[in-house]
Amino acid sequence: MVKTLILGTLGLDDVETPFGKVSGVQGGSCSYASMSASYFTKVGIVGVIGDDYPQGHKNVLVSHGVDISGVEQVDGGKTFSWGGKYEGDMNSAQTIFTELGVFENFQPIVPEAQKGSPYILLCNFDPIQQNNTLKQMSKPKISILDTMNLWINIRIDALKLVLQNVDVVVMNEGEARMFCKTDHMQEAGQMLLGLGLKRAIIKKGEHGCLMFSQTGDYFVAPAYPLLSIKDPTGAGDTFAGGLIGHLASVDATIDADEEWRRAIIYGTAMASFTCEGFSLSTLAPLTRERIDERYKLIRKLSYIPNIE
Amino acid sequence: MVKTLILGTLGLDDVETPFGKVSGVQGGSCSYASMSASYFTKVGIVGVIGDDYPQGHKNVLVSHGVDISGVEQVDGGKTFSWGGKYEGDMNSAQTIFTELGVFENFQPIVPEAQKGSPYILLCNFDPIQQNNTLKQMSKPKISILDTMNLWINIRIDALKLVLQNVDVVVMNEGEARMFCKTDHMQEAGQMLLGLGLKRAIIKKGEHGCLMFSQTGDYFVAPAYPLLSIKDPTGAGDTFAGGLIGHLASVDATIDADEEWRRAIIYGTAMASFTCEGFSLSTLAPLTRERIDERYKLIRKLSYIPNIE
Repeated sequence: MVKTLILGTLGLDDVETPFGKVSGVQGGSCSYASMSASYFTKVGIVGVIGDDYPQGHKNVLVSHGVDISGVEQVDGGKTFSWGGKYEGDMNSAQTIFTELGVFENFQPIVPEAQKGSPYILLCNFDPIQQNNTLKQMSKPKISILDTMNLWINIRIDALKLVLQNVDVVVMNEGEARMFCKTDHMQEAGQMLLGLGLKRAIIKKGEHGCLMFSQTGDYFVAPAYPLLSIKDPTGAGDTFAGGLIGHLASVDATIDADEEWRRAIIYGTAMASFTCEGFSLSTLAPLTRERIDERYKLIRKLSYIPNIE
Repeated sequence: MVKTLILGTLGLDDVETPFGKVSGVQGGSCSYASMSASYFTKVGIVGVIGDDYPQGHKNVLVSHGVDISGVEQVDGGKTFSWGGKYEGDMNSAQTIFTELGVFENFQPIVPEAQKGSPYILLCNFDPIQQNNTLKQMSKPKISILDTMNLWINIRIDALKLVLQNVDVVVMNEGEARMFCKTDHMQEAGQMLLGLGLKRAIIKKGEHGCLMFSQTGDYFVAPAYPLLSIKDPTGAGDTFAGGLIGHLASVDATIDADEEWRRAIIYGTAMASFTCEGFSLSTLAPLTRERIDERYKLIRKLSYIPNIE
């Protein structure tokens, strides 16, 4: 049975970085997040593709145990497609093109059998559709929402509405700055909790992330120090997938502070793998053993000895 | 007996931040570093002042047990003075003026009784004088050097020379970028070790710091999350003072990885206090108990639970 439902995009990416160039590769928030979560939990995904979407891309997901019965295929439609380029310190992509394709008129429908999934991740997506998806669920135990600057710009009211209905938000620093109208991440975090969110996670890229919680637990998490980043596309989605994956795997409640800290470090570990190669090339061949090894390495690198 | 010798500037600062404005206050790398270290170890300082340097400023240092017999007072001379302004996110100061005064022709002389000090911190200073100071010491157990972009620009050869003679360098991210000619801090750290340094510490401000070591220990340290920064002047010097102070207090060797990690967190804690007020106002009235409390809080905030 599906334990974790993930809504997001399935896409075809053209990506160029100082390390190379790929075209038509498997991309989209849902691909990264679901594969990442698949190492921890049984995942079902909701998304849309055109009939140009390669069978091989589906197979990769299915071979990771991902239930794709919630993926709508539009005959004659074109799959969502994105082209981007990274330069210099590779902290942000320059978008070359975005073709919405079948994604433009997409109305997510959660399969009947998956409406009871206790864990739900709403990847970066139109907040109106994030909310519509959430409404089809029968009281999930934990719901996590990711978003991006585009929706803060053009759908701020819908975004505020859906934020009232989820437990946790994940934003990067730039988005938090925009949404909370402050440069101070401590203020931003408190403001997000003030909206009623149980937890707010602010990602700072190579500087790790911060988790603010209604329980009072405040977590300053490190990043995994990568010697070289080949392609950061999907790192945020991979992080969110690892996060919800771990939570689902231990049946975590929203108040389980230690599990949330573990979930963040698992998310961090998963994201680091994604950055080491193009598309899903480094994420797809992982083992739970290698993931746990990286978890332990991150823990060791940032270990602070006690005093006294 | 003096256990830790610190070379640096003693100055008078004018500082303006969004939180207020002060003028003629106690400043200079040596003031911050020595006061910070004084909570851990017996400190002696080497520096220079004019006869305009207020007796009250001396008293503050002496009352913290700092031995000021190595401070030269130049009759008729003007004390080093700096004016700076912080705006926005307050990550960097805008220098309004720098008056070198007596500092311009200063030749540091280490008092006879302090030449055997086992721990030495060379605060940001002309690298030629850092080297001259180091040469007067009889084989210190650990030497740490701080620097700044100015010396990387105008004294690169002297800086490279003195780096061959010290054990550890402390730089901020911008300086590491400049000196190592790379944006990747992993590369920068490895390059600094390649120069023969035993450890290299790269400070990333609100994002914590990184320590690279010849022992193979690599430490990713968090920052203390400050809700508001009143005045960051001297934070780096305070960090270095806490760092060497802890090392001296436990007679740490260069290879004692755990003590170096503790030293970094003590430095981080001390720097966070400095940022909470103007000049030495928050650093001067500390107690070891409050310092240890903050250490433990930093440790708690970044604690990662084990897995299995």
